Amino acid sequence: MAGVQDMTVGVLGGTGPQGKGLAIRWAQAGLRVLIGSRKSDRAQEAAQEIAATSGGDVAGRDNAGCAAEADIVLAALPWDGHADTLRSLRTELAGKIVVDCVNPLGFDGKGPYALPVEEGSAAEQAEQLLPDSRVTAAFHHVSAVTLADLDVPHVDLDVLVLGDDREATDVVRELAGVIPGVRGIYGGRLRNAHQVEALTANIIAINRRYKAHAGLRITDV
Amino acid sequence: MAGVQDMTVGVLGGTGPQGKGLAIRWAQAGLRVLIGSRKSDRAQEAAQEIAATSGGDVAGRDNAGCAAEADIVLAALPWDGHADTLRSLRTELAGKIVVDCVNPLGFDGKGPYALPVEEGSAAEQAEQLLPDSRVTAAFHHVSAVTLADLDVPHVDLDVLVLGDDREATDVVRELAGVIPGVRGIYGGRLRNAHQVEALTANIIAINRRYKAHAGLRITDV
Repeated sequence: MAGVQDMTVGVLGGTGPQGKGLAIRWAQAGLRVLIGSRKSDRAQEAAQEIAATSGGDVAGRDNAGCAAEADIVLAALPWDGHADTLRSLRTELAGKIVVDCVNPLGFDGKGPYALPVEEGSAAEQAEQLLPDSRVTAAFHHVSAVTLADLDVPHVDLDVLVLGDDREATDVVRELAGVIPGVRGIYGGRLRNAHQVEALTANIIAINRRYKAHAGLRITDV
Repeated sequence: MAGVQDMTVGVLGGTGPQGKGLAIRWAQAGLRVLIGSRKSDRAQEAAQEIAATSGGDVAGRDNAGCAAEADIVLAALPWDGHADTLRSLRTELAGKIVVDCVNPLGFDGKGPYALPVEEGSAAEQAEQLLPDSRVTAAFHHVSAVTLADLDVPHVDLDVLVLGDDREATDVVRELAGVIPGVRGIYGGRLRNAHQVEALTANIIAINRRYKAHAGLRITDV
């Protein structure tokens, strides 16, 4: 398989903070980035902004165009539209590595909490909806604020990469590793994705208590 | 509330590796430790071993004696007997801080996975069974091997401490902090305990892949 440096990375939901933050870092690292959104004009707007911030090669497409043209695709979709959007892109995403970074969370007066997901996790929902794709899960705990701030040269974070396809998880680990400071660490099979997604609720609780942009590091690795 | 240095720490299930490892470190730090087990002779045997390893003050009791005499109690029980044992100790544990470190996991040919828990998590099960106690959750990701090896002077780990009782979580954070290298970090409310328990499956997967004794660090805190 080609290295990620030669790949075009599509970011479905690239107009949201998580997708935009990662797109900035990937574009800065020299990868070609395609921003996907429901409306291509909104995607193009975000792409221009990301290109200006990162100095990289960034274009905008509607979600279907983004999925069709990219070599590897990050699903940074709102949980709300996750199933519908992925279901509609099954053909475009066939044969490709899909990276799901979605955290199904709810918020109430007591703060964040993990939503129950019928399929077990957002990643397993993606796997069921995209039987022809190579579904992985990663980038759940990235701080959008830290990623978007290029004055932070070194992002102090390990990205847990989950999946049942070894080659696919290796490519996604490489995709994490192009961001300065970040390591991509294999984090288990897709059936263990729920707790990694849900842990984002704990990280938000930590951020609130400590006024931080907390991330994870894995020790002894 | 008194500092943890003046407390007697009870370890229910202290003959198992996780409880024993923590007991060694607490005894070494100068805390009085009581090992609890179903049979007091097994508890006393383990206590003698832990006292010899740590040079600390360690005694053994049956679980009820351990719970009654300790100021703060770690539930390091097998998931299998978790509910029955805690239910039987409701009176002894009344008014005390209980720290649940239990990880409900299953294993099959594909490795570890999180078991579903009716109450949401082991910690929430404890909370329901012990309405008169101050239930917290912590110490899920400690490596028993690393703790028991006193040639490792600095344990590279942050312990996430969950609970809805601020004072109780502060005491448990202090209890984590007496182990050299360890920080106790507030990790959210008890309703967010499931994913912290379940994440142990991912850590086991990481350990297998990287031949490591992996732990977590929280960055920017």
